[in-house]
Amino acid sequence: MVTINENYLKLKAGYLFPEIARRVRVFTESNPDAPIIKLGIGDVTEPLPEACRTAMIKAVEDMGDRATFKGYGPEQGYAWLREKIASQDFQARGCEIDASEIFVSDGGKCDTGNILDIFGKGNTIAVTDPVYPVYVDTNVMAGHTGPVNDKGEYEGLFYLPITAENNFTAKIPDRPVDLIYLCFPNNPTGATASKADLKAWVDYARANGSVILFDAAYEAFITDPELPHSIYEIEGARECAIEFRSFSKNAGFTGTRCAYTVVPKSLKVTASDGAEVTLHQLWNRRQSTKFNGVSYLVQRGAEAVYSPEGQSQVQGLIKFYLENAQIIRQKLSDAGLTVYGGVHAPYIWVKTPQGLSSWDFFDKLLNLCYVVGTPGSGFGAAGEGYFRISAFNSRENVEEAMSRITDNFKV
Amino acid sequence: MVTINENYLKLKAGYLFPEIARRVRVFTESNPDAPIIKLGIGDVTEPLPEACRTAMIKAVEDMGDRATFKGYGPEQGYAWLREKIASQDFQARGCEIDASEIFVSDGGKCDTGNILDIFGKGNTIAVTDPVYPVYVDTNVMAGHTGPVNDKGEYEGLFYLPITAENNFTAKIPDRPVDLIYLCFPNNPTGATASKADLKAWVDYARANGSVILFDAAYEAFITDPELPHSIYEIEGARECAIEFRSFSKNAGFTGTRCAYTVVPKSLKVTASDGAEVTLHQLWNRRQSTKFNGVSYLVQRGAEAVYSPEGQSQVQGLIKFYLENAQIIRQKLSDAGLTVYGGVHAPYIWVKTPQGLSSWDFFDKLLNLCYVVGTPGSGFGAAGEGYFRISAFNSRENVEEAMSRITDNFKV
Repeated sequence: MVTINENYLKLKAGYLFPEIARRVRVFTESNPDAPIIKLGIGDVTEPLPEACRTAMIKAVEDMGDRATFKGYGPEQGYAWLREKIASQDFQARGCEIDASEIFVSDGGKCDTGNILDIFGKGNTIAVTDPVYPVYVDTNVMAGHTGPVNDKGEYEGLFYLPITAENNFTAKIPDRPVDLIYLCFPNNPTGATASKADLKAWVDYARANGSVILFDAAYEAFITDPELPHSIYEIEGARECAIEFRSFSKNAGFTGTRCAYTVVPKSLKVTASDGAEVTLHQLWNRRQSTKFNGVSYLVQRGAEAVYSPEGQSQVQGLIKFYLENAQIIRQKLSDAGLTVYGGVHAPYIWVKTPQGLSSWDFFDKLLNLCYVVGTPGSGFGAAGEGYFRISAFNSRENVEEAMSRITDNFKV
Repeated sequence: MVTINENYLKLKAGYLFPEIARRVRVFTESNPDAPIIKLGIGDVTEPLPEACRTAMIKAVEDMGDRATFKGYGPEQGYAWLREKIASQDFQARGCEIDASEIFVSDGGKCDTGNILDIFGKGNTIAVTDPVYPVYVDTNVMAGHTGPVNDKGEYEGLFYLPITAENNFTAKIPDRPVDLIYLCFPNNPTGATASKADLKAWVDYARANGSVILFDAAYEAFITDPELPHSIYEIEGARECAIEFRSFSKNAGFTGTRCAYTVVPKSLKVTASDGAEVTLHQLWNRRQSTKFNGVSYLVQRGAEAVYSPEGQSQVQGLIKFYLENAQIIRQKLSDAGLTVYGGVHAPYIWVKTPQGLSSWDFFDKLLNLCYVVGTPGSGFGAAGEGYFRISAFNSRENVEEAMSRITDNFKV
């Protein structure tokens, strides 16, 4: 008789986004004409850069001619894309990353989930609280946790609270942990990490033989030249960190699908027999066996991000969303709300007013303003009393949503 | 101190395709002018159908307009694609498969590997021998096997030999096994399974509470109307089988990347607490958490496969490769070799002449004919003494390769 992976049964049934969808549906049934504006999910709304579209049309045409047709590509991605990534995203910033250390994939969500394949079962896992739910859920599914409690915390995970009280800076643990998830600029809080912050984590990881899983999906939104875009700007990170990047939020690839993961060859782990094993060789084996590379068309689109036109068009998109974020920050502040993030990130993290719970504020915003956001408690227990508003929408919708909020919450 | 998944260290280092590449490289260094023809790896060579290209260019254009731009799509695939798959690939053949049971993905290799995520650790696994190596390697990586022996067999796997002696029909096991991998038309042997063959497996699986993982990646090559294209043509399969399909080998999507997996909602497993769990809900959770859907552009390309033009163009590709296969069968037979497969599959499975081992025949073919194929022993111990030749190449290359073989091996 076949058995199933029963770890899946530990997952909370009432997951964040389905519950949001349910409440919106219930509201819409009673208020069919309410002009709802969604600032919830972190999905882009603006057209794909022209440079990417031109490159992809050319790539489709390549597929129509036997001489330029592409079958299976390298599982790790084409050299022409990996080289541009290494050169422009890393070497140009002084990071010693080689093209052979780049693994092109179809999504950051996939990579941050799949990376667990190459690690052992007994590791202690640290995540911030609040946190991107995928880090937690994939660990639950892999059997790295016990059951969940009423606050939504899983037994066996080491939670690092990030709240206004600690300036959204996770405290370095007072004990050894093996795998550490960090995401900066942060989803959901919009907080950033300085070089000193990351150096403390790198030093800790090297001292404890830990591996940092660094999610830099939002690095393109950084506007302060002093803030690090990559963990490899920190000395020693090549020996302890894997970095995840994505074309989703810079070039608007959420529906086009391309991302990449950096696994430095100097990241070594000792096996139980004393042999030294590189995580690069394990991830390479994982990807070669369980993945077949990203669509040629999509890789050509991603490559165009690195052309002068592509760079300029991506900068235009980032500028647009950051202006949205600035409008949201300003209007919510004017309404007397306390706001965080939204300067180096497309997310504004709002303290709920009048001591409202995250879900009560959600309901109020939906019922009074017809605006949908994301309750902070959905990202973890320490997110209670906060609320995430995304800057991904048209200017018109952002302005309309903000004026509704100002009208209703003005102090 | 972080630990790694040490199951990876059990994987054989000298993997099939790297070893082929090594031998070809060595040969080429001494014979730089030899006009090598590769009939090894199962990769398509002909242009993508025009219907798919036209649809993908239109999709790229959609991405350029805010009104038609697509961000995150459903992780399971767009309804317009899932509905066409359900209707044309299944309902049209009398299979009761609903669109909600289709999960669109970026590759059959990914799906056949990732499916293990939802199963427990203690299952007995059966694979045919020879077999597509990914089934074996992903089980090794997941910790479902012991070490490998000299013949390349992993301890703990239940091997089902398929050879000329048993007419390439795997014998139903005399004991219960929990997970059974079947691939028909078969890679690498090109063998097929009749409805009676599959019914015996379905009956066995239902009697034993087993799950069949049915890989139908090559179904489009079936030319005999009596042969089943899907396991769901067999009564009871909805209760015991998952089916994998791909656009790689019918529409030439090896570099474009699209596939799908069918998980019927009636496939239920009992958890250890007695609760009934559907594999559909587990796979849906797996895909929602660790996958973000296939590129919108690519899904539009796959959709075009189901248009009248797309169907006719795909039929043209299949016909072309099957004619190649027929030429290979004929010429090798003329040269006195014994051949199998190649009638309902793009692979010809050759008995090596003069009792040569698979690798000796490989070397002989490379050195005398400058033709590269795949040694049967690379697919499993029972593949020793066989050799796989692929029909994926230009007509000119196939004819040239065959005339070289005829010249050198003529009896």
